Amino acid sequence: MSHNGAGVSEVTVRVPMNIALVKYWGKRDEQLILPLNDSISLTVDKLTAETTVRMIQVVGENTVEINGRRVELSSNKRYQTVFDEALRLQRKRKEDLNKNENKCITHHFEVISKTNFPVAAGLASSAAGFAAIARAIQKILNLNDTQANRLARIGSGSACRSMFGGLVHWKKGEKEDGSDCVAVKTESENWPDLYCIILVFNDERKKVGSSEGMRRTRETSTLLKHRIEYVVPERIEQVKKAYESRNFQDLARVIMADSNQFHAVCLDSIPPIRYLNESSWRLIELVEKFNQQEVKAAYTFDAGPNACVIVQKYDVPAFIRTLLQDIIIPSEDLKSVEEELKVSFDCPSESNSPILCSKLIVSPMGGGPADS
Amino acid sequence: MSHNGAGVSEVTVRVPMNIALVKYWGKRDEQLILPLNDSISLTVDKLTAETTVRMIQVVGENTVEINGRRVELSSNKRYQTVFDEALRLQRKRKEDLNKNENKCITHHFEVISKTNFPVAAGLASSAAGFAAIARAIQKILNLNDTQANRLARIGSGSACRSMFGGLVHWKKGEKEDGSDCVAVKTESENWPDLYCIILVFNDERKKVGSSEGMRRTRETSTLLKHRIEYVVPERIEQVKKAYESRNFQDLARVIMADSNQFHAVCLDSIPPIRYLNESSWRLIELVEKFNQQEVKAAYTFDAGPNACVIVQKYDVPAFIRTLLQDIIIPSEDLKSVEEELKVSFDCPSESNSPILCSKLIVSPMGGGPADS
Repeated sequence: MSHNGAGVSEVTVRVPMNIALVKYWGKRDEQLILPLNDSISLTVDKLTAETTVRMIQVVGENTVEINGRRVELSSNKRYQTVFDEALRLQRKRKEDLNKNENKCITHHFEVISKTNFPVAAGLASSAAGFAAIARAIQKILNLNDTQANRLARIGSGSACRSMFGGLVHWKKGEKEDGSDCVAVKTESENWPDLYCIILVFNDERKKVGSSEGMRRTRETSTLLKHRIEYVVPERIEQVKKAYESRNFQDLARVIMADSNQFHAVCLDSIPPIRYLNESSWRLIELVEKFNQQEVKAAYTFDAGPNACVIVQKYDVPAFIRTLLQDIIIPSEDLKSVEEELKVSFDCPSESNSPILCSKLIVSPMGGGPADS
Repeated sequence: MSHNGAGVSEVTVRVPMNIALVKYWGKRDEQLILPLNDSISLTVDKLTAETTVRMIQVVGENTVEINGRRVELSSNKRYQTVFDEALRLQRKRKEDLNKNENKCITHHFEVISKTNFPVAAGLASSAAGFAAIARAIQKILNLNDTQANRLARIGSGSACRSMFGGLVHWKKGEKEDGSDCVAVKTESENWPDLYCIILVFNDERKKVGSSEGMRRTRETSTLLKHRIEYVVPERIEQVKKAYESRNFQDLARVIMADSNQFHAVCLDSIPPIRYLNESSWRLIELVEKFNQQEVKAAYTFDAGPNACVIVQKYDVPAFIRTLLQDIIIPSEDLKSVEEELKVSFDCPSESNSPILCSKLIVSPMGGGPADS
């Protein structure tokens, strides 16, 4: 942390996005962003938001800049919610320290965030972004993990899962004030051999945003309640157990089943919500083909058509060779994978009806945030 | 019924296919074809199988001919199951009449069936075909409705719903021998204003057959049980009530929700089953657009991409005009609709990315079978 003068605190952090293995879908409190069910996730080490937060002890306008562009805060209320909560926590601590001190210390925040992947690619960048803001403010105000977690969550629900490395369990909690709704690092040691292969598929369809989608599913799906009460708790335990015992096949089966069930409850909504497109389905078929002898890969899809395929490190080249049979991958992306993994891929024979992937990213998982 | 000589009984009937409004998906007994849940349906008057059954009192080979082609009975065991059951019923009756009569009367069957729509179009023709065989045998052997229903069902489960006009409720029953598993005509008077618009969309994908699909869903979906126990019973009542009170909007809402839920439990299966394609989804979007002000149409999809849209008779022209904005319809099909409804459709302005429908059929619903 550097202090540019008495009234300015500045911290820079780098925080990865995360992928849920058991999905979060549905809020029980829209304001506090309290989920209807637990979820569990891994971070994607290579997709990060590097974020600098300056807290300036003078009245002023809060500003947020992402990849060089100013964010219009009046239409993105979540930033203000986070800043307000940060100031509340600071005031609270000061009150604890000195009951007589002036309560009206005024501050404003400047946030500068850079993601190392295109925000427009449709990869959920807000989770990494809000987690980074929360982590930087945690450093500035010396908050505990629970406070920082809340800060991330009220910015963007699943952001709270990006605050740790390893397997992270976001517990829905029971309390109305959200005080027991926190993401925690599970006791399992990180499994560094887990890699993900992210495929970005373009899509011109008008997307149902995840907040709107969650609301619609909660209000109209007759299957969601059963998922939440009976299916998710068991799957959380299955993921923990498979991860702890390094049982890739069991882990992969739960991941795929839960991705499909998340999309099933979307389809069970009125009107039905559809995030998977033809490319997503082709990818599902390729994974099934790859898994024919033995389950070695698991697909998972969030609220969009882009695929995340989880494999063990030594299966990455074989899986990419399977991809190349049916999917056209940008050559620069392929080249960087070849360099990194020290393998080479043959030019594939022509596919009958290849599909186009606009970006391929290969990354280890579970690394967690870092401070600079 | 005509008798060509003493040993031959011949009956010809015409039976329509049916569309489930609350879907049948999952068997509790594969041999007797007993379903896991009730379903409810309407017949499609214009899509019929005209079938002649000859029961010949001499040993011989059973034969089945559909649209001029001989069916290979060794790979279509269901026909033999139906013939065996018919002979069992006949023997049973003869025994009741005369305990001393020879039990070994031997017969064989000749079936000639013609559908008035292409079997290859992907419209479920087996329901109409087996219902027609069952109805013809009912006439020949003077069976009661329950016996005839069983005969249709063991041929092709949903065939038992084609045995009546009006709103037909196939009750799953509780007994192991299937004796209380019957389709019955509900008490509501037929609603002749209900029309359906069937759109056939081509699809080159390898389809998961419905028997295999049902098995997979029953064995792997964690949502199916909830659907069966809690959702379907309520929806059956909702359909009955809406149909009885001629409440089209309520009826349409249940129909669409149940079609979507059926496809949701397919997606929740391992590996996931997908029947809807891009064309199906475009049709869903068109129906949503058409329903924006008021719910006037309901889509429903069986185990394939073809759509069935249920509308009231006076809304047929308006709905077809909506279709024409985005869907290319064969001109001869459009012309026959124009002639029948005495309307004319303008040549639509060019759509950006029209989809192709290979067959359009407009038909009243609920008419039921007929004898000739």
